[in-house]
Amino acid sequence: MLKRSKIPKPTVKRLAVYFRCITKLSNDGIEKTSSKEIAERLSIKASQVRKDLSYFGEFGKRGVGYDIEKLSFKLREILGLEKLWNVAIVGSGNLGFAIANYSGLEANGFKVVSAFDIDEKKIGNVILPGVTIKRFSEFSKEIKEKDIEIAILTVPANVAQDVADKVIDNGIKGILNFCPVPLSAPENVSIEDVDFVISLKALTFEITSREQEKKEQEKRNNA
Amino acid sequence: MLKRSKIPKPTVKRLAVYFRCITKLSNDGIEKTSSKEIAERLSIKASQVRKDLSYFGEFGKRGVGYDIEKLSFKLREILGLEKLWNVAIVGSGNLGFAIANYSGLEANGFKVVSAFDIDEKKIGNVILPGVTIKRFSEFSKEIKEKDIEIAILTVPANVAQDVADKVIDNGIKGILNFCPVPLSAPENVSIEDVDFVISLKALTFEITSREQEKKEQEKRNNA
Repeated sequence: MLKRSKIPKPTVKRLAVYFRCITKLSNDGIEKTSSKEIAERLSIKASQVRKDLSYFGEFGKRGVGYDIEKLSFKLREILGLEKLWNVAIVGSGNLGFAIANYSGLEANGFKVVSAFDIDEKKIGNVILPGVTIKRFSEFSKEIKEKDIEIAILTVPANVAQDVADKVIDNGIKGILNFCPVPLSAPENVSIEDVDFVISLKALTFEITSREQEKKEQEKRNNA
Repeated sequence: MLKRSKIPKPTVKRLAVYFRCITKLSNDGIEKTSSKEIAERLSIKASQVRKDLSYFGEFGKRGVGYDIEKLSFKLREILGLEKLWNVAIVGSGNLGFAIANYSGLEANGFKVVSAFDIDEKKIGNVILPGVTIKRFSEFSKEIKEKDIEIAILTVPANVAQDVADKVIDNGIKGILNFCPVPLSAPENVSIEDVDFVISLKALTFEITSREQEKKEQEKRNNA
């Protein structure tokens, strides 16, 4: 079997999507599924589903498909979701507030236990029930007391690397980075970028491409 | 040259990242750059930068590098960013509010001109200066009047496909989907998913992998 750290990132993300898909099937009372069914629900190829799962050994039987309970158990283990992860919001502005209050977090095993800012006007405000915004200078103490492993970074871009350096120095293991800048981090810290402006530009690329090709087609038709 | 619609999605996203990188260089008064410099700033390989750019012909001269102004002009054209794009927020909850007020949008050519909800308590509230939240039933009228091409979807997951169908029926060209469900859309509508829970699970996969491999290493060392 391939070393876990060698599994391609797109495969890992798809595994998380498969996990969500079969969790839904399971909630609907369904007990068996197939790569074909998962693929259809996600508008991808069944061969892709089989290839992604094959990195982790044999799950299903040819022609019989997957037992949902077993596959769910295995995916939960692979993704590290057998435990609840304590998360800190670093930067308690509009975006930090929205993420802290996003119901999908706790439902998926992520618990926002702390929130930080440097704006004195925000310190002490409740960001979500049970969590008040603390001074960023208290991060070091909080991360130990509350066993925080992941930081969600929603600070202004110009301070992102500085803040990232500080949370890393304090032992954070992973950063979900909402700042539109690439962060450097040592090898033993994971970074995931969520950059929705880049996604918007992928949209405008596609829309523009479609319109250009349509125009070219019309030109050819009129020629 | 490859048809634009055949360019791989990861390449398109990297082009948007290169554009941001050289915009920064340009703002710093720098006039020339190289694939090596761009790659170093983004922690990727220079060969990747060259390959991605090569889809669109020759930009630089071997050994001389890229003229930033020319490359910037070309990337802006490729990504469809020569114009301002009008955007609607569909679902004006916490996340919709945070995105509407995200300063990076207008700075990158995206203008939030409308916002919608179905919650009567929200209708008429100001989501950002100059934009009040309207009833979703007015979407059809607004999209024409305000020339909206892109919708940012921040509605609850259970209504996401229904709402997507409605904005598509009204002629939207692209959807930035923040809902944690895969959306189906006809071929002439682009969808980009922003799913930060999936990104969190990619983080927990990596953290767990690292910890497992460390434990295995320690076991081997003690054996």
